[in-house]
Amino acid sequence: MFLETTLPNGLKVIGEQNPEALSVAMGFLARAGSRDEPAHLNGVSHFLEHMLFKGSEETRAQQINHQFDALGANYNAFTSEEVTVYHAAVLKEHASALQHLLTELLKPAFRPEDFELEKQVILEEIQMYQDDPISRLFDAARENFWGSHPLGQSVLGTAETVGNLQVEELRQYFHTLYAPNNLIFAVTGAFDWEQVVSQLQQETAFWQPSEVQRQHPEFVPTFETQRLKEKQLNRSSMTLMGRGLASTDEKRIPMNVLVELLGGENSRLHWKLVHVGLADEASLSHVDADGIGYLEAFISAEPRKARKALEVFHQVIAEARENLSEAELARARNKLALQAALRFETPYNRLFHLGLEFLYTGRYLSTEETVQAILQVQMAEVQDLLHSPLFDQWSLTLQGP
Amino acid sequence: MFLETTLPNGLKVIGEQNPEALSVAMGFLARAGSRDEPAHLNGVSHFLEHMLFKGSEETRAQQINHQFDALGANYNAFTSEEVTVYHAAVLKEHASALQHLLTELLKPAFRPEDFELEKQVILEEIQMYQDDPISRLFDAARENFWGSHPLGQSVLGTAETVGNLQVEELRQYFHTLYAPNNLIFAVTGAFDWEQVVSQLQQETAFWQPSEVQRQHPEFVPTFETQRLKEKQLNRSSMTLMGRGLASTDEKRIPMNVLVELLGGENSRLHWKLVHVGLADEASLSHVDADGIGYLEAFISAEPRKARKALEVFHQVIAEARENLSEAELARARNKLALQAALRFETPYNRLFHLGLEFLYTGRYLSTEETVQAILQVQMAEVQDLLHSPLFDQWSLTLQGP
Repeated sequence: MFLETTLPNGLKVIGEQNPEALSVAMGFLARAGSRDEPAHLNGVSHFLEHMLFKGSEETRAQQINHQFDALGANYNAFTSEEVTVYHAAVLKEHASALQHLLTELLKPAFRPEDFELEKQVILEEIQMYQDDPISRLFDAARENFWGSHPLGQSVLGTAETVGNLQVEELRQYFHTLYAPNNLIFAVTGAFDWEQVVSQLQQETAFWQPSEVQRQHPEFVPTFETQRLKEKQLNRSSMTLMGRGLASTDEKRIPMNVLVELLGGENSRLHWKLVHVGLADEASLSHVDADGIGYLEAFISAEPRKARKALEVFHQVIAEARENLSEAELARARNKLALQAALRFETPYNRLFHLGLEFLYTGRYLSTEETVQAILQVQMAEVQDLLHSPLFDQWSLTLQGP
Repeated sequence: MFLETTLPNGLKVIGEQNPEALSVAMGFLARAGSRDEPAHLNGVSHFLEHMLFKGSEETRAQQINHQFDALGANYNAFTSEEVTVYHAAVLKEHASALQHLLTELLKPAFRPEDFELEKQVILEEIQMYQDDPISRLFDAARENFWGSHPLGQSVLGTAETVGNLQVEELRQYFHTLYAPNNLIFAVTGAFDWEQVVSQLQQETAFWQPSEVQRQHPEFVPTFETQRLKEKQLNRSSMTLMGRGLASTDEKRIPMNVLVELLGGENSRLHWKLVHVGLADEASLSHVDADGIGYLEAFISAEPRKARKALEVFHQVIAEARENLSEAELARARNKLALQAALRFETPYNRLFHLGLEFLYTGRYLSTEETVQAILQVQMAEVQDLLHSPLFDQWSLTLQGP
């Protein structure tokens, strides 16, 4: 059962109850990711995520960890281009204590000594990330495709932007972006809804109502080819990025089925590229996000086969436009629907689906509705998408020796 | 709801129904692992697992994969010391088709050309495994501890035993060990029990009733220290193995809580070894298997700190005997109970728990019963175990430069 309310301070609370569950999962989702950052503050959302585990005025980092741990909780957080999520799960008996701890995270003290320590941790994280060739490729591909649109920014930020960040900027970003109307509290599994809402209302009563709206700047993609020459590599890798569909687009589910068919496990790209030995890896995925979406293909091959592999990629799309079988479509639907069913069967996984869907679309989709929507995708919808301009233009980034 | 029956041919069928689930998971569990192999056939259980995916008289390997794939199934198999499991999950609509495919696996053709090809695949797998220092350490530690007991044998087998294996030996092992009374068919999630049983009865009607009993040879552990000198390594690693408790032992749940407290995440070993920089990794685990169990600790450290790390390991156990707090115990209980709840919430994960528990103990334990049993573990039970001879004697294997 889906439940939804808005607190007087503007905080949205949503829940999906499963009285049979033994566990409860909950979390805060903030509509704050690298796409929301001014260029000179790139990395601030992710930095903030780290700082929220450093304690409030009353608690220190170690105490927070100790308290989560005493409940036997699974807990963590992540930051993406779109969102920052603080999440945890416990046995249902500990629901109220866990909710208290999560709410405490949102009262960060921003102690300067913690800030300086954490800056070093993140600068190391950036270095490690940049040591990985595939990370360098994806960073470059994103910049190439998105141009000046903020989705071109990296989640971690750069050594320069993070190095220059001031604790006051972090605090201000927090107070602006973590406005109650920009947050969702989500809860799944076994819980008492009245209790959840009243405790949350009490513990966030001091929050000041304030409003912030995400910016959706116009996006003009760059369809250019970019080459990253890296002599030390033994493999050529490439990404192709193209326009996709937003979460609110009614065609996004047919798009996801199409992309599974073309570029998922045992897909057309697999058979034409990996199976025949032209490439080590070949995949195509579709990301439907808040108000915008994109396609992203990845191919890794021996350098001498890279050009041919790229040709075959385009050929696979051309052939699919000519001819897709109902059996292939059914297989892709079954595959995607099963993944959805398996993924969403536990409260902890439901939390992310429920929370993100609501954040992007303001809508609730049960697991059953998701599965049914996937199983109902028709050939005509898939072919319409395949013949749309979305599959005509690609921003290509090549990396290799 | 738990369901159980035995077919006329002796095959046991068990199920746990969750009518709310959208998926169904099912599989065959064979009481056949490396512990059931004569020494000269070591590796035959695992080899057999590979051969079952090579097709029956009527089907070829590629068709099998294609048929699973057309259903959108997740499917795989694994072999351990104890058991070989063939498992799969699909949307509930495809339950009957999936069950048919799984049953087909148990009619292997044993084509000599498939056998020779697969032998090369497995010999490569053995080589890759032996290239990994930690695998070499665990192999040596197992041999050291188990001596001539068949649990000392590796799951993959050796290059020699697998190299010498004949297809006829494989066939004979199959016909002996895959006797109906040595198999379980398990099903979880959303399914129609009557339909499952009648289809299974029909599709296995040609199976001949036959009986096999697992051997439980007497076990006399070796508590000796073994050194593997490997100059190229930068780290010293060690394992300590000791006697543990069987799945049927009523103290196994207190034992698992104790081991979580001593050697799980954020445990005593973590704080005394990893947190203070004496070791990179330190863990203790307990494996309760069919009629037998064991403790296994792993420590990895800088070579110059290895001796000290080993001292601290023994010290942690001595200190725990003197003093464990109720808060620590509660934390370990909560942690383990939450892991059980989260792990068992999906039909696919339930399948393994349900199947293995039944295979080892002939008993059904619901997720709720498991969680409650963990939460009820008392300090006195834990201290009794800690003061038992189980924690006195260790078989030590050291590996390093």
